[in-house]
Amino acid sequence: MPQLQRLAITAAQIGDRQIDLTREQQHYLNRVLRLQAGDRFIAMDGRGHWWSAVLEVRETGLFASIAEEIAVNRELPVEVTLMAALPKGNGFDEVVRQAAELGVASIVPVTSDRTLLKPSDQKVERWRRIAAEAAEQSERQIVPTILEPVSFDVAVKDCTQKYRYICVARGENRHLWDCLLGNLEPPQPPLLREEEDAATGFDPPQPALIRGEQERQELAIVIAVGPEGGWTEGEVKRAIEFGFEAVSLGSRILRAVTAPIVALSLVGAAFEKC
Amino acid sequence: MPQLQRLAITAAQIGDRQIDLTREQQHYLNRVLRLQAGDRFIAMDGRGHWWSAVLEVRETGLFASIAEEIAVNRELPVEVTLMAALPKGNGFDEVVRQAAELGVASIVPVTSDRTLLKPSDQKVERWRRIAAEAAEQSERQIVPTILEPVSFDVAVKDCTQKYRYICVARGENRHLWDCLLGNLEPPQPPLLREEEDAATGFDPPQPALIRGEQERQELAIVIAVGPEGGWTEGEVKRAIEFGFEAVSLGSRILRAVTAPIVALSLVGAAFEKC
Repeated sequence: MPQLQRLAITAAQIGDRQIDLTREQQHYLNRVLRLQAGDRFIAMDGRGHWWSAVLEVRETGLFASIAEEIAVNRELPVEVTLMAALPKGNGFDEVVRQAAELGVASIVPVTSDRTLLKPSDQKVERWRRIAAEAAEQSERQIVPTILEPVSFDVAVKDCTQKYRYICVARGENRHLWDCLLGNLEPPQPPLLREEEDAATGFDPPQPALIRGEQERQELAIVIAVGPEGGWTEGEVKRAIEFGFEAVSLGSRILRAVTAPIVALSLVGAAFEKC
Repeated sequence: MPQLQRLAITAAQIGDRQIDLTREQQHYLNRVLRLQAGDRFIAMDGRGHWWSAVLEVRETGLFASIAEEIAVNRELPVEVTLMAALPKGNGFDEVVRQAAELGVASIVPVTSDRTLLKPSDQKVERWRRIAAEAAEQSERQIVPTILEPVSFDVAVKDCTQKYRYICVARGENRHLWDCLLGNLEPPQPPLLREEEDAATGFDPPQPALIRGEQERQELAIVIAVGPEGGWTEGEVKRAIEFGFEAVSLGSRILRAVTAPIVALSLVGAAFEKC
């Protein structure tokens, strides 16, 4: 089967088993991708839903009918943000690429006590392109967001995620794995949520599709990973003041480019398998 | 504290709190590293034990007295071999570096149906240097062994490890995490072993230090990770014939350079944390 072309749409464009296409989208499908009436493509709403759609013609122009929702979901059941200190050189390209492969929802590049140089706008654009490429290659439904670089202090202050971890290479900190299992109890998140709803009489106001996304956001996690040489003691202290827990990634000393990948691998296993 | 020099020794060189040094080692410590009587260095037996040693003089030459065993152990409690298909370009450098950081015991570079080109001797030497550098940077006690490249078919036939997994990107295979927990029961390996010994009347023939290493080898795991595009169906079939289990690394499609890192992260978490 040839690889189908993909089109990003908004949830508002979806009606009764059909998709209203903007003029730009009609042009893109017909003129750029050379699709004809009757050809299939994949519509993605950027919130984890994919539909197999068929291009159709009516008097006013092109629209698409929805053939079926595509059930394959490659997204993590939890929204994970990576707060990563910028390493020297081009090491961050690979961090962005691998984090995107592993299901990260967003990446906050941070300047830290040991990496003061703020990256250029071109670099940030480059990381966004890499994230989009990697999301497509790994067949994800969502392209991770690369936020504007900020200082570590601003990033920890502005944090909105419920669960916050800062990886520290040395010392006697709990393993991230224990924290994920202990704090989040991933073995039964849907059951727990339903039980809680029943207990409080809470009636989920959103349809099932949206509710899944809402739950995903409520379990939001942020993991901060330091630069080569690690976070300074002051940085770890400040993060802890803002509700972060200092965690270990195991017995070995990892490089700044490897630690994020290990952390995200563990999140994946904790939420998809436990 | 300045970084101490390290010397690889064999277990046979260790006597009653002292180390018999070969002529080459005496020359290396005294002439190359310029250590004097009374200077300290680290002796490593290549099986996970480090000693802080002091260089001493006697009439017949130099020897070393053992000051203390160094307790920090950064090695995984299980011996893991990565059997990795060679990707195109220089991608394997980073696989070797990250795998070494994550505690791999040995790496078997394999040529596969989709990567036929056998690497040059220079490349293999380069990977060995990278493995040694990465082991030192991550403060490991053991330098991972990079074996000579062989064909995938030879590698799976010659396999001696008890637990064998082949990572497959698509399909309905069990997650590696489930296999590690299910087959190996890492939560209580020392207890299980002791219970088994008690039940069978088995008396471990080796001293404690060696016994640890023996246990580590008995739990040996090999994980095969394919090239870009994955293993062919024929390769997966042949591996299964030789006792490999096909496993998944999660819902997303990973690149050949990312998959080994995810697999090794999971092994680390399974054996160090569960």
